[in-house]
Amino acid sequence: MRSIKNLKQELPVLAVDLGGTKIITAIVSANGQIVAKERYLTLADEGPQAVINRLLSAVDNILNLKNIDPSQLNSISIAAAGGIDVARGLVTLSAHLPDWHNVPLRDIVSDRYGVSTFLLNDASATTLGEHRFGAGRGVNNLILLTVGTGIGGGIIIDGRLYNGPSGSAGEIGHMTIDVNGPRCVCGNIGCLELLVSGTSIEREARRRIAQGEMSSLVEVAGRMGDITAEEIGVAARGGDSLALDIIAEAATYLGVGMTNLVNIFNPEMIIVGGGVAELGELLLDPARQVVRERAFPVSTRAVRIVPAELGDEAGVLGAAVFALESRN
Amino acid sequence: MRSIKNLKQELPVLAVDLGGTKIITAIVSANGQIVAKERYLTLADEGPQAVINRLLSAVDNILNLKNIDPSQLNSISIAAAGGIDVARGLVTLSAHLPDWHNVPLRDIVSDRYGVSTFLLNDASATTLGEHRFGAGRGVNNLILLTVGTGIGGGIIIDGRLYNGPSGSAGEIGHMTIDVNGPRCVCGNIGCLELLVSGTSIEREARRRIAQGEMSSLVEVAGRMGDITAEEIGVAARGGDSLALDIIAEAATYLGVGMTNLVNIFNPEMIIVGGGVAELGELLLDPARQVVRERAFPVSTRAVRIVPAELGDEAGVLGAAVFALESRN
Repeated sequence: MRSIKNLKQELPVLAVDLGGTKIITAIVSANGQIVAKERYLTLADEGPQAVINRLLSAVDNILNLKNIDPSQLNSISIAAAGGIDVARGLVTLSAHLPDWHNVPLRDIVSDRYGVSTFLLNDASATTLGEHRFGAGRGVNNLILLTVGTGIGGGIIIDGRLYNGPSGSAGEIGHMTIDVNGPRCVCGNIGCLELLVSGTSIEREARRRIAQGEMSSLVEVAGRMGDITAEEIGVAARGGDSLALDIIAEAATYLGVGMTNLVNIFNPEMIIVGGGVAELGELLLDPARQVVRERAFPVSTRAVRIVPAELGDEAGVLGAAVFALESRN
Repeated sequence: MRSIKNLKQELPVLAVDLGGTKIITAIVSANGQIVAKERYLTLADEGPQAVINRLLSAVDNILNLKNIDPSQLNSISIAAAGGIDVARGLVTLSAHLPDWHNVPLRDIVSDRYGVSTFLLNDASATTLGEHRFGAGRGVNNLILLTVGTGIGGGIIIDGRLYNGPSGSAGEIGHMTIDVNGPRCVCGNIGCLELLVSGTSIEREARRRIAQGEMSSLVEVAGRMGDITAEEIGVAARGGDSLALDIIAEAATYLGVGMTNLVNIFNPEMIIVGGGVAELGELLLDPARQVVRERAFPVSTRAVRIVPAELGDEAGVLGAAVFALESRN
């Protein structure tokens, strides 16, 4: 028995990162090397069944590409952008995957391939990935924030992912910081995610341009009909004052969220990843300033606020870590 | 060596709970029995030196009372109402002990009595006490909130107190929930404590009575010149609609803070202690309702929101637990 188990542990994990925009599949070796990686669009608006079919095709494709039979896998591990019931293997709800309600994704995949399958939140996976292989190597207590379309979070306590008894901890983006604010899709009020995310930055740019403010983005808006967070970042780097202002405002709110985390967790590190985090110091520097001004000094001195290092590979790497450690 | 160590472990702890209002001293046996307990007023406005002298007198008194020499103690353990630098044994700052800045209370006490001395935050101590001997017995992941003059917090993760690398975790009362709110004494903005605490309830009652609202509290205010949270509780139980309204508003804010904790930690339990918590279901019931309406359902289903069980003995019991476990 023992030798079969050890053999199984040396087999690779097929890891999937199911996001609101992209599906990434990867074959990850037992020592954390990515030996194959593929990217697809999620096209989440087509609904759960279409996305599940696309995910299964993506899994088929990478198995064919590397000529791997499912029996040659340690396991399949899926990081998904939404609330996860780890015990039951459900995507319970998702702001980024419309109409997903208690979808039994883990069992759908394990039934099809006959392989042990794991399902975890994508921010949890990113956290595990950055902790083992990225910015958080060797750090025992850290918080990761992924700032993209929304805000996800993950928590490492004493060197281990803290998922909570239901596996649903880490919903840091859905922390109320504006008690008089608007309602969020999650049902809560004034969530951090409403004030700091790609969606909120884009909304704020549209609103201010519609009010007649001057900006190089006016031309982008006219030409494209819409403005992306990426374009706002480009404009900011070019010195556009509206773009700089919008980013500084979001960064201040991000600092408010981080101040809460510093006061509550006294972490050694806060890692910021996700698409919006590619704004780099434009986002991190004002956020650090808010933490320095507002958080308890002893906790502020203990924390480093740093960018993520692994980009979009963190999710599949972390999903693989989760599976490999769960099987030990 | 081993037998001396074991002997030491069987000795009692002299535990002190230094709050903004009261100093409690206790002799706690190695199995968690309180064999003596004394109470004094802190008179915190007299400043650090007067309070330290009073604390030392209180320690002397309980030693004399039980005819104990300091050498017969396992240790002295002090729970203090403020930010604590556990490594350096400092009270770094305190909203409830005016003018305390980096006071080396641990070393002041250990130098005087020649006994190992521990210093921790009072809410951390209360959390340890309730976890081992009170409402949280056998619960692996819980958050405790003490709602009194201010709000303190403590975190149990995987059965152990989570204090953070600097020992300053758990400042849940200083979580921004109103990003456009007023500045708190801690330096942060719109803290939970500004909206839910004895101080905030009393301030709100004074404000609304000054605006001419009808209430049985008007008479109390006229007679006493001031209104305490306790009197507001009495009026609410008597059906006074202003008092009921003020408590319901505070309870709603408490629910907002709890929703954040449920989304971030997915705890099995939130324990609510402290003087204001004596309002009982008047406070807890509307708070639970907010959590049910706003937090992620999978996490909401996992959590029980319950009153503390140990009253003001939780602090000294928890301080003793902290010392006994630190010496193991």
